[in-house]
Amino acid sequence: MTATAGVVALRYEPGALHAIDQTELPWREHHLVLRTAADVADAIKRLAIRGAPLIGVAGAYGVALELGRDPAGLVPACELLATARPTAVNLAGAVDRVRAAAQAATGDPAAAALAEARAIHAEEEAASAEIAAHGAELLAEAGARRILTHCNTGALAAPGRGTALAVIAELAERGSLEKALATEARPLLQGARLTVYELAHLGIPHELVVDSAAPGLLAAGAADAVIVGCDRVAANGDVANKVGTYGLALAAQAARIPFVVAGPTSTIDFATATGAEIVIEERDPEEVRQAAGQRLTLEGTPCRNPAFDVTPAHLITALVTERGVLRSPDAASLSRLRAAPGV
Amino acid sequence: MTATAGVVALRYEPGALHAIDQTELPWREHHLVLRTAADVADAIKRLAIRGAPLIGVAGAYGVALELGRDPAGLVPACELLATARPTAVNLAGAVDRVRAAAQAATGDPAAAALAEARAIHAEEEAASAEIAAHGAELLAEAGARRILTHCNTGALAAPGRGTALAVIAELAERGSLEKALATEARPLLQGARLTVYELAHLGIPHELVVDSAAPGLLAAGAADAVIVGCDRVAANGDVANKVGTYGLALAAQAARIPFVVAGPTSTIDFATATGAEIVIEERDPEEVRQAAGQRLTLEGTPCRNPAFDVTPAHLITALVTERGVLRSPDAASLSRLRAAPGV
Repeated sequence: MTATAGVVALRYEPGALHAIDQTELPWREHHLVLRTAADVADAIKRLAIRGAPLIGVAGAYGVALELGRDPAGLVPACELLATARPTAVNLAGAVDRVRAAAQAATGDPAAAALAEARAIHAEEEAASAEIAAHGAELLAEAGARRILTHCNTGALAAPGRGTALAVIAELAERGSLEKALATEARPLLQGARLTVYELAHLGIPHELVVDSAAPGLLAAGAADAVIVGCDRVAANGDVANKVGTYGLALAAQAARIPFVVAGPTSTIDFATATGAEIVIEERDPEEVRQAAGQRLTLEGTPCRNPAFDVTPAHLITALVTERGVLRSPDAASLSRLRAAPGV
Repeated sequence: MTATAGVVALRYEPGALHAIDQTELPWREHHLVLRTAADVADAIKRLAIRGAPLIGVAGAYGVALELGRDPAGLVPACELLATARPTAVNLAGAVDRVRAAAQAATGDPAAAALAEARAIHAEEEAASAEIAAHGAELLAEAGARRILTHCNTGALAAPGRGTALAVIAELAERGSLEKALATEARPLLQGARLTVYELAHLGIPHELVVDSAAPGLLAAGAADAVIVGCDRVAANGDVANKVGTYGLALAAQAARIPFVVAGPTSTIDFATATGAEIVIEERDPEEVRQAAGQRLTLEGTPCRNPAFDVTPAHLITALVTERGVLRSPDAASLSRLRAAPGV
């Protein structure tokens, strides 16, 4: 197999966005039919649609859908959608683009909004393919054949084949992958539920580990590189990503193996100077008290549940974008990337 | 409350060892009645009895029980029990002591074995109290009031009040604790199930986090110190402990806060030169595929499931034993500890 046959996370049809409900995977492939901005915002909030690039595209379609129903609905729809998740910059960015297109339209604003949403979708699909190619080249050059990844960054996280998982899929297609190691990604288990599901569909040899096993396995030489996605990249190269990413970066550094971050340039937030400024979403403690609906601890136990953590730029070997690879990303190299045409 | 009221993990009565089945906590306080070495070995293997010091004591009683039933049963019972878990040195050490006492007995070997098991039990209880006092002094001096701990190291892990969790309990008694942060400790959730249960019984303010959230929280200043137990300490100070410990040590170093290991000297294995020689138990992959009996991933997913990892001595700020505190433990300081009378 060369792609996640049958796994299409989002599909727009006139009047509705069809989305796999990712909270039900891998047990049930249930498709949601989202007709309003509120439907889309709700699906994003409860993680039925997730992954920074994918929620950006979903948010864009959400604005277009609402405008098709109610020509006066633009501003509240944009506010609702832009704030459905606080950490990913893609979401606010995509919503802003669709709003601007609708407001600038000389003809039908709803048609202009939909055209912009489709354009964003197509751009992200193209970005996924470029990221896969650049990342596979980087890792193949490094001789990395056993790759550890965190959370889910495949077709269920970003249009096309995703980001970090697209790199792994591309390496496998090129015959350069021995095995993928997937962390489970507590509390919501996107690794155990979604990445394993995608890897199984792709026919890629893989092993699942609990999150806290990864540092010791890296120290013992069980992987040649770590690759993860990103929810937001600050202007200095600090990366906010799924909680647990920072610990993997520390462990990769200690094991002297590459720690690679993959994401489209839409994930870079030049308005945020450093990772210290990124608002870390704190989610419902009940997510920690349960796993896949099973209670794990005493009822009402107080919990901390940060959804993300920040990995400082100095721990990042390379940032792989659709525009190429930044080695040791920092404010200067990101600034050059921004100045390049088309960014 | 000043102690885990009602939580007595092990109790010997003539002909039987009574043990709380820790696999059923915190939902059900079910007491096992173990009458043979095989009963005890089985309880250790399936983690109904766990924690390096506690399984040492259980193993000691197991030998005595078997000898009380069958005077010829000494050697096979010792072999069965000493190998019930591969990583903890206490178990083999305690079993050897009871065997030697039985073999050296001039009177009834079974009575000699039981007396030795009781002596080991009493020594471990005394060690717990000493560890608590030394550790609390160390952390109070460091001004650490918010302490992160991993897995379970309380009364359910070691006779008395335990090891690392005994330090936290002692700090709380002295009015020097603001809060304990407990990691859940996947896959078997000893933190979520057992540490939270003990902290709730002790009336100690606490918060539960998923394992991978700890490094980011430490970087953000959420705790002043990390304290963990140990399953085995090598002669050079490298520490094997519950999987995830190594990642916490890296994160504590990066956050410039103390990383403290607490355990009785019975945990030190002078026959093992470094952590590289420690055999890491690889457990059933089904533990990774499930949480508290709930399936988390596709059936048959290949998994790695190391039960422990190794933290190199250079990451350890202090080793707290019943004989005092070793700062920056290494081969020389451990060797001096060994040479001290009574070790």
